[in-house]
Amino acid sequence: MDYFSGILGRLIDELGRMPGIGPKAAQRLAFFLLRQDAAVVQQLANAMLEAKAKIRPCADCFFLAEGERCHICSDPRRDARLLCVVEDPKDVFSMERTREYRGLYHVLMGTLSPLDGIGPDDLKIAELLKRLQAGHVQEVIVATNQDVEGEATALYLNKLIKPLGIRVTRLASGLPAGGDLEYADDITISRALGGRRELE
Amino acid sequence: MDYFSGILGRLIDELGRMPGIGPKAAQRLAFFLLRQDAAVVQQLANAMLEAKAKIRPCADCFFLAEGERCHICSDPRRDARLLCVVEDPKDVFSMERTREYRGLYHVLMGTLSPLDGIGPDDLKIAELLKRLQAGHVQEVIVATNQDVEGEATALYLNKLIKPLGIRVTRLASGLPAGGDLEYADDITISRALGGRRELE
Repeated sequence: MDYFSGILGRLIDELGRMPGIGPKAAQRLAFFLLRQDAAVVQQLANAMLEAKAKIRPCADCFFLAEGERCHICSDPRRDARLLCVVEDPKDVFSMERTREYRGLYHVLMGTLSPLDGIGPDDLKIAELLKRLQAGHVQEVIVATNQDVEGEATALYLNKLIKPLGIRVTRLASGLPAGGDLEYADDITISRALGGRRELE
Repeated sequence: MDYFSGILGRLIDELGRMPGIGPKAAQRLAFFLLRQDAAVVQQLANAMLEAKAKIRPCADCFFLAEGERCHICSDPRRDARLLCVVEDPKDVFSMERTREYRGLYHVLMGTLSPLDGIGPDDLKIAELLKRLQAGHVQEVIVATNQDVEGEATALYLNKLIKPLGIRVTRLASGLPAGGDLEYADDITISRALGGRRELE
């Protein structure tokens, strides 16, 4: 895109580095920003810089925190006997959206993935075991994704944690709410079958 | 989205104000930015602020300029006898991409649109007439969009400019390159028919 040179070209390049923003979208965003008041652009730039400067991984669970510990770990009303293990900070938001879970979290910062060279030492597993050894946790809910890496990570964690005498559970796998049997894939159906429950 | 509060929530809100960025995309961009090095985020913020601070409408043609006049108006190799009138600065980039046009531009900053309350005084029409009165221009190519507002603006400009003894032309309307007759709409086909040319 050598039609865009100088300052505008640099802005388009920078915007185009973000995920899901192709060259056309980057141009559209750049033109949008040029049309805005300087104060609006300043606000956006400030929001980025402030978030980057102030948001850090929580010292306990590695979720996003504005201080030393995140708002969930700092909340005395949360049930410290339950620990939900997720892959990524954004998974915490997904769990929180249900408003059902009242325990704490532990973010692994990835999953075991030998093909990508990611082993146990690249994840926050040592930190997880240290938390468990403190002795408050009675159940670890493994909420890694239902894909090969997520499953492998869940099995690996189970092997490590069970010997500590702590219950390890996994989120149920099955048909999604509103899901149509006709459109479900084989693995989903066989998992739903394996996890079937008696009606009361 | 009250799951996102504080600094992260503000960042997501700010990102979500950009066009084509919905709440989910804004979240994805925010998490992306948090994962980047501080220097990367700083660069993006700087590119925005610099573009906003330094890019101004060209004093002559209202295209984007880093100084007083844009790089096209400042280029002595451009043909000052040809003036292409477009709606928006980004239309200049579209024209330049062809590498065929070597004249100058005039950006109207919109089109006549009575329903939106946009009349001639809201556009850069007075500035256009002033440029034409300087006497260099021999042909005005009206390249407003081929929609109702663009057509109305072209007709309006024609009425104003023709009495000055300057030729007024309009970009051809017809089937797009690679266009299939089967999928073309009626108006496009009838315009293509009206504008048919004899083969040499």
